Amino acid sequence: MLENIRIVLIQTFHPGNIGSVARAMKTMGLSELILINPRAFPDDEATRLAAGATDILDSARVVNDIGDAVGDCVQVIGASARVRGLPLTHFDEADVMARELVETAHQGPVALVFGRERFGLTNDELRHCTHQLTLPANPDYPVLNLSQAVQVCTHELFTAWRRQPDSGFRRARPRHATLPTQQQMQYFQEHLELALTRAGFFNQPHAQTRDRLRAFFQRARPSRKELSLLRGVINALNGSSGKRPTGQQESSGESREET
Amino acid sequence: MLENIRIVLIQTFHPGNIGSVARAMKTMGLSELILINPRAFPDDEATRLAAGATDILDSARVVNDIGDAVGDCVQVIGASARVRGLPLTHFDEADVMARELVETAHQGPVALVFGRERFGLTNDELRHCTHQLTLPANPDYPVLNLSQAVQVCTHELFTAWRRQPDSGFRRARPRHATLPTQQQMQYFQEHLELALTRAGFFNQPHAQTRDRLRAFFQRARPSRKELSLLRGVINALNGSSGKRPTGQQESSGESREET
Repeated sequence: MLENIRIVLIQTFHPGNIGSVARAMKTMGLSELILINPRAFPDDEATRLAAGATDILDSARVVNDIGDAVGDCVQVIGASARVRGLPLTHFDEADVMARELVETAHQGPVALVFGRERFGLTNDELRHCTHQLTLPANPDYPVLNLSQAVQVCTHELFTAWRRQPDSGFRRARPRHATLPTQQQMQYFQEHLELALTRAGFFNQPHAQTRDRLRAFFQRARPSRKELSLLRGVINALNGSSGKRPTGQQESSGESREET
Repeated sequence: MLENIRIVLIQTFHPGNIGSVARAMKTMGLSELILINPRAFPDDEATRLAAGATDILDSARVVNDIGDAVGDCVQVIGASARVRGLPLTHFDEADVMARELVETAHQGPVALVFGRERFGLTNDELRHCTHQLTLPANPDYPVLNLSQAVQVCTHELFTAWRRQPDSGFRRARPRHATLPTQQQMQYFQEHLELALTRAGFFNQPHAQTRDRLRAFFQRARPSRKELSLLRGVINALNGSSGKRPTGQQESSGESREET
């Protein structure tokens, strides 16, 4: 779906910004870049700042007119720092915009249009847009650099795309740590309480303290390995004299640390 | 609350990146920057790329050790491109991270830590963190520039902050256009249907066509001014012979356009 979403830059002044935009696009899975009358392109500075995204620059289309850039699009969103006079539907949240644009991209090409570094979009250019977007920013200094504005938008588009049920995106997750069963947690709590009783910590009924300790370890969600490590710690502190609490069958109850 | 959130950069190599980070912070309302052993700072390139955010550079703290940067923090999130070996709680969505960090910042200072441009955070540095963050990105090129990664995170922090009920943030919204009442919409629909009947468009019962036209104009949500404009258009197309449908009292029903 992301290949139906194009980024359009109007009369970019600094070629470095075109390179940074290409990088901001590629990191977020976008590839379709259209440049309307760039001041200098191709350009070494654009290539340098694109880093590993020079393929986006190589395949970028350069056109003279915004009509050539968005004429075949079914939705065109003009990004501008200020809210303009045209009563177009206005997005003031990037994530809301992104969800709608990704949804519409199922129907055909869509475009997100960014104006010149200093002036943004003219009203003439906004007339080619179906919607406008203002990124909310610090009222004292709402001046995002062009590539940073594109990065925020492409990040939101990528997020909206990933969160579609059929995106097939696979997250980078830490190696899966196996959680203990609640019975293993129960054995651990009994082990701890026995050790604390033996150490004289529980010399009178302390139901509340027991509950707090139980809640603490439930909240911490130790893995099976960590539980085993903790039992070793308890035994060591308890003078290694720990015999197992009655009724405990678990094989990992030794004080050995499994790493 | 945003003043409790600090951005920490470790051994930044390119001073320009420090400047771009300052700008990315200020646009999103953040001001606390801490630099750990930057290669060159202060530096002209940093100042140039900070643009209107040089005050962030002026007040930045430079320290030698990550402990000095985050020792007083109640939550420290280490951002890294790869998922590391330490079994810290791991965020893989920037908005989820941001909501938690903004929430925790009510209790005391919190930090978001970014490593060197090429290497990210070492495990030694991650040991100072309570959580880690990986920004989801294109698996073929997940290489965000440092300041672009910071921009994504500060945007999400600002968004999470704004969406708190007590943030007091005022959006830039288009000038409020007054919506017509449903009675005014009803008069408009009657005017249109009378004109279409007179024009021979409704020469037999067309309940479905009437419904479609009504639904179209309801969906378009014209303002009062636009409704007046549309009635002028109908009169003009209908040969300006339009006398008002019976029972219509509305004063703005003339063909004059109010702009």
